[in-house]
Amino acid sequence: MQSEHSPQHGSAPPGPVSYLASVGTALPGDPVDNAALARTLGVNEEWIDVFIGTRTRHFARDLETGEVRWSLADLCARAAEQALTASGLAPHEIDFVVMGTATPDHLMPATVNHVVDQLGLDQIPTYQLQSGCAGAVQALQLGHTLVTGGGHTAGLVIGGDVCSKHLDLDRDLSSAAPSDLVNYVLFGDGAGAAVVTSTPRGQRLALRTVLNRFTGLGREPGQVIDWFGLADRHEDRQAVREDYKAIEESVPTMAVEILWELLEELDWTPEDVDFLLPPQLSGRMTRRIADGLGLPDAVEVSCVADTGNNGNALPFLQLEALLGKIGQGQRALAVAVESSKWIKSGFALEKI
Amino acid sequence: MQSEHSPQHGSAPPGPVSYLASVGTALPGDPVDNAALARTLGVNEEWIDVFIGTRTRHFARDLETGEVRWSLADLCARAAEQALTASGLAPHEIDFVVMGTATPDHLMPATVNHVVDQLGLDQIPTYQLQSGCAGAVQALQLGHTLVTGGGHTAGLVIGGDVCSKHLDLDRDLSSAAPSDLVNYVLFGDGAGAAVVTSTPRGQRLALRTVLNRFTGLGREPGQVIDWFGLADRHEDRQAVREDYKAIEESVPTMAVEILWELLEELDWTPEDVDFLLPPQLSGRMTRRIADGLGLPDAVEVSCVADTGNNGNALPFLQLEALLGKIGQGQRALAVAVESSKWIKSGFALEKI
Repeated sequence: MQSEHSPQHGSAPPGPVSYLASVGTALPGDPVDNAALARTLGVNEEWIDVFIGTRTRHFARDLETGEVRWSLADLCARAAEQALTASGLAPHEIDFVVMGTATPDHLMPATVNHVVDQLGLDQIPTYQLQSGCAGAVQALQLGHTLVTGGGHTAGLVIGGDVCSKHLDLDRDLSSAAPSDLVNYVLFGDGAGAAVVTSTPRGQRLALRTVLNRFTGLGREPGQVIDWFGLADRHEDRQAVREDYKAIEESVPTMAVEILWELLEELDWTPEDVDFLLPPQLSGRMTRRIADGLGLPDAVEVSCVADTGNNGNALPFLQLEALLGKIGQGQRALAVAVESSKWIKSGFALEKI
Repeated sequence: MQSEHSPQHGSAPPGPVSYLASVGTALPGDPVDNAALARTLGVNEEWIDVFIGTRTRHFARDLETGEVRWSLADLCARAAEQALTASGLAPHEIDFVVMGTATPDHLMPATVNHVVDQLGLDQIPTYQLQSGCAGAVQALQLGHTLVTGGGHTAGLVIGGDVCSKHLDLDRDLSSAAPSDLVNYVLFGDGAGAAVVTSTPRGQRLALRTVLNRFTGLGREPGQVIDWFGLADRHEDRQAVREDYKAIEESVPTMAVEILWELLEELDWTPEDVDFLLPPQLSGRMTRRIADGLGLPDAVEVSCVADTGNNGNALPFLQLEALLGKIGQGQRALAVAVESSKWIKSGFALEKI
């Protein structure tokens, strides 16, 4: 069966299709380069360059004063406002808002409700997914389901993270272990959003399929991020812990598995893929993973070397870059791995 | 038009229908009564009786030693295991897991993934919604959407909360303000779960509709629960703050609005409702709200006076009690209000 909108490709998609009408993003303040970061933290600039491979990142908290300049709600509202304007849809056409984050401003209210308030929306369902690198994909999947089978016609999907609450600038890092230091140089803050619709609008990016699957049975977490409560906040423990060996070993393999699973489900060949949005762990890891994915003809769309790993914002930052490049009939695959408890995720797009 | 399965009622439901096949719940340890709580906290037992109206609650943390005996994942897994066994479905028939909580064990991995691990499930999508009193309803709504329009046939819906991390037993509460004290006597810990199916299975409780709507535009939050990060954990601030005046004023009114909106959507009359599951804020507030709902013929199904306000567990605890009472063709309405940022929620059931 021939796909109606992509004459140069061979097969039709298997399931219901939703559409991305627009994308918006928000990064707080000016980029912070490795020299500035090394100066503030008292660490070696070259070490950041070589072992992380990330050039700049943005922080919602001022590095000099510690002052919090943007909340997660502020960044998400800015990105969503941008997406909404770019979509051409009126605010009253938004039927729901789904947001993914690992770092909510509070436990309650869910941050998505402050975002909706800032946007001036009311009387709609809101959902906030607690998730790391797969959260934006889970939010897209939920948005996709709500417009293809949930009786809705358009919604906002948002992702963002602000790690400021774990950026303890009073600490002396000169003798910190690399496994601790890395948490100060790997991450960034930011947000992104997209308008998802049941029929082609705006950018007319068909969301062909979304993959989101827990694969962590019996596996130790590769990444743990804690929060402190009143009862345990004076305990002396790290708030962010990674098993880098497990991440370095597993993520590239899982990325390949996700890629092939998406291709098989869509009945696409590697040659059908014009753009690749690979996992955005760090500048160095992303280069390694993208090289291993075996799509030599696909143009890589990455952002982490400039934005830092800002979690749920990343797929939207990649999508925004993709919008400037993708032409009618062209196809893109996105792959994301959540190493916390090993979630495989990804999605497939086609501009119609 | 006559509803096929409820000869004594007049009208058919408006949208797609899913089914609850079973319910499971888990409460940690023995109930803690007001005498024991008053002794531990150094507060007045009669004050708890009169102003809160809650007789007992359960805590995941030992009141004497402070030891954490159950994680949220432990409680949710126990409830889900129970629901799965009672449903008669095999584990491989579970297509997804959706969980709602305001108090995840960690920020990452999402607690739902540890629950799924404990259940021995793998290779399925997992979602964790960050939400307060409306979270269980949001999770039910998402489960409903996934089996009615998302291509799935069965899934687990879970809700639970463990407030232990904010139960600072080292504090001297003898001079604490009532607005602070109330956080120690209002809440409890617990979890619940249900198996949602696309066709009638097990208990054959038809989920006729689910309401979930943000109504907080321009309104200050009625409840805020914070978390502490590495950077701000030594700040001297309350982690839980309520605007009790706003809650006492708004929740009863909103409960009535939810009730009538559900009735109108379903084309049911107040006389059609056999069981009412009212909001579970505290023993005292719940009595007041239920009295104001104007359903004199409906049997009230409440639990908060015995379980404390354990957030996302509450609707499942009510559902479990309902299962022992509801007969074929009978109808139940559940109403929940999230005062954090004013979310209206509820659902309608009919045993077929």
